[in-house]
Amino acid sequence: MTSAAPRPADPDHLWSVDEHLEDILTTVHPLEPIELQLLDAQGCVLVEDVTVPVALPPFDNSSMDGYAVRVTDVAGASEEFPAVLEVVGDIAAGTADPVRVGPGQAARIMTGAPLPPGAEAVVPVEWTDGGLGEGPVTGMHARSLAPEGAAGHVRVHRSVEPRAHVRARGSDVRAGDRALEAGTVLGPSQIGLLAAIGRGTVRVRPRPRVVVMSTGSELVQPDEPLGGGQIYDSNSFALTAAARDAGAIAYRVGAVADDAVTLRSTIEDQLIRADLLVTTGGVSVGAYDVVKEALSDVGDADEAGGGVEFRKLAMQPGKPQGFGSVGPEHTPLLALPGNPVSSYVSFELFVRPAIRALMGLADVHRPRIRATLTADAPLSSPKGRRQFLRGTYADGEVTPVGGAGSHLIAALAHADALIVVPEDVESVEPGTEVETVLLR
Amino acid sequence: MTSAAPRPADPDHLWSVDEHLEDILTTVHPLEPIELQLLDAQGCVLVEDVTVPVALPPFDNSSMDGYAVRVTDVAGASEEFPAVLEVVGDIAAGTADPVRVGPGQAARIMTGAPLPPGAEAVVPVEWTDGGLGEGPVTGMHARSLAPEGAAGHVRVHRSVEPRAHVRARGSDVRAGDRALEAGTVLGPSQIGLLAAIGRGTVRVRPRPRVVVMSTGSELVQPDEPLGGGQIYDSNSFALTAAARDAGAIAYRVGAVADDAVTLRSTIEDQLIRADLLVTTGGVSVGAYDVVKEALSDVGDADEAGGGVEFRKLAMQPGKPQGFGSVGPEHTPLLALPGNPVSSYVSFELFVRPAIRALMGLADVHRPRIRATLTADAPLSSPKGRRQFLRGTYADGEVTPVGGAGSHLIAALAHADALIVVPEDVESVEPGTEVETVLLR
Repeated sequence: MTSAAPRPADPDHLWSVDEHLEDILTTVHPLEPIELQLLDAQGCVLVEDVTVPVALPPFDNSSMDGYAVRVTDVAGASEEFPAVLEVVGDIAAGTADPVRVGPGQAARIMTGAPLPPGAEAVVPVEWTDGGLGEGPVTGMHARSLAPEGAAGHVRVHRSVEPRAHVRARGSDVRAGDRALEAGTVLGPSQIGLLAAIGRGTVRVRPRPRVVVMSTGSELVQPDEPLGGGQIYDSNSFALTAAARDAGAIAYRVGAVADDAVTLRSTIEDQLIRADLLVTTGGVSVGAYDVVKEALSDVGDADEAGGGVEFRKLAMQPGKPQGFGSVGPEHTPLLALPGNPVSSYVSFELFVRPAIRALMGLADVHRPRIRATLTADAPLSSPKGRRQFLRGTYADGEVTPVGGAGSHLIAALAHADALIVVPEDVESVEPGTEVETVLLR
Repeated sequence: MTSAAPRPADPDHLWSVDEHLEDILTTVHPLEPIELQLLDAQGCVLVEDVTVPVALPPFDNSSMDGYAVRVTDVAGASEEFPAVLEVVGDIAAGTADPVRVGPGQAARIMTGAPLPPGAEAVVPVEWTDGGLGEGPVTGMHARSLAPEGAAGHVRVHRSVEPRAHVRARGSDVRAGDRALEAGTVLGPSQIGLLAAIGRGTVRVRPRPRVVVMSTGSELVQPDEPLGGGQIYDSNSFALTAAARDAGAIAYRVGAVADDAVTLRSTIEDQLIRADLLVTTGGVSVGAYDVVKEALSDVGDADEAGGGVEFRKLAMQPGKPQGFGSVGPEHTPLLALPGNPVSSYVSFELFVRPAIRALMGLADVHRPRIRATLTADAPLSSPKGRRQFLRGTYADGEVTPVGGAGSHLIAALAHADALIVVPEDVESVEPGTEVETVLLR
């Protein structure tokens, strides 16, 4: 799943956002394809070119409810001088052996039913008396209530051209046509087409299984009483939801205490169901930074480039980050900082693209646009760090919400965009165009 | 769930697309709210104003890994003339009763840990010797490996202002603040905020449970052999996927044969798990149109306006449509035409808004834009009917794919937009601006 990527040797190297992202995207490869039931493949990327095995429609069939006729039998027919034809039976949709239509005869035929031998066209029921011997009708009586409709005589009020109201075999797709190309993302209408050509299963890259775990001895689960020095765990909830939103099957693991042995064994337990592991917290310079402690010197050290590397990024928020792989399958792991806003921004920038790369999607990134900054005062930004400020976007304008403080989770919940301030910019005036990442 | 809506009395009334949609949207009401676990509420609409019960952060805490100090003890400190303080212990995140910091003392403190009594500010570890008696350090050693770091003396190289590197209690949100308003759609960051303020469950409108069933004796399940006159069932797959895509929990029921008794009993069976029923096929003027036959004279006739009404719409594709309610709970039912393209277009125009109305979403419609038609020849459209042609949209231009024939399911799978041709327009020249529904 992962392979060794070249990494700067200097442990004090300050990584740029782009370097870190590139390291992730060159390391994380699409998951191996599997055969899935059609509806389980929704949102997945097709890995095979799908060819049409049978023409659609598979046989000439009626596009209307009406009567299958020979063209010469209804030539010149009008309401005043109708053609009177013998009704030789019904042809319902699904009929395998439709009744033959001979000269002077008609078969009552339903939409989608096969055009019977002998017939050349279909006359819609509205152009007939429906076999009732009176004027034009607007429809047929239900067969179960009026079985006599399939017998007797019908008066036809209009002539038809050959093939009128007939859908020709293969007029939608022909056998051998390319139905869908490898790389197609399967949405409702692609799933509909696959079903229509008889495909019950399809070969796709599966949704990645992402295990999200937060770390921190201060974390308490919501709805539990909060003791001194404690806060509620929010990262595992927000990032599990975000992983699903990105297309993953996400599993939330409750907060793990700051104990390296516990964390290592929790990660080992979770490996069985993980294509990607995401942790939050414990990646900074503190004496209790358990993720760093637990993973710095373990992992898959048996392979060059394996293991988890902790680095400092030239960004705000989100400076401390870990990335690498763990376990016998070299499962990729992203270790995000613990602050809720830092972890969410880090998820958007690094984890979401990783999930989408695992899915085999061509476009792994959120849309980015240029927007005009609307603000009361200039934005300030630390030199040498790329800043990601939370904002709201509408109609070409983006407005910051909350401040630059990385703990403003309330403001984050009202943001739908990230404002990007480059490394070399320390102040942005209102009215300036800024790069904006749309979070929706 | 549904209530009586005024309907035109004339059974031959040709309904406009807007009249039919209005009838649906005035009849289908949002589902009753329920209390859900946070992660089960993703994508749902909040029905309560959520107030912050405890301030965030709940206590003054450190924003850095470093040392909690008294400001006067480090006044004037420099690398040349450091302040030397006695380290009285560690304060990890989650500590309930942090050690008191007296004059001349410091406590080693971790990010997120409570500011201890006596301390006024935090000095980042990078501004100290980390207790090692040498130059500035870049971080702390893990507590488990170097327990002595919590004792001895630390040299501080810089002074700090009061409250430096301290996040004040309530600086993110205060108790009593409005966290989220009723009507908010719960995405990852809203779920994160709710968890952060201790909410493990939340009151939302649930996702509607939508049962999708196709009808037609000609229908065979994919991967089964195709007999004479048979085609594969695709509608139940496409519309189940589309219902999920719209936000529903969708259940697919395999194709039901054209038999009114079977269909009625299948619908009765499914009512237990349905907030909305969707059928395809059997709604036209044929003698085997089972949905019409089974539902025209049953349903909840005990309530005025109940039951299912079958109508003709001034649209192409999708002329025959049924809408009403069935069963003791007056469960809404939309009966769509059976042709795959007709049923998909009908789903987009009528079922998707109904699902989103059941969810309580303010915006139930797909985005619509004006786009320039790109085509080799003028589009033709039947007078008096609103036509919805499949197209692909990019950069302000929309191009038709496939023809107007309603059976072109292959073309549909390559479309991402619907081109709307109004009732009074019979021809649209290339280069004209056309209303376009974006299907993504």
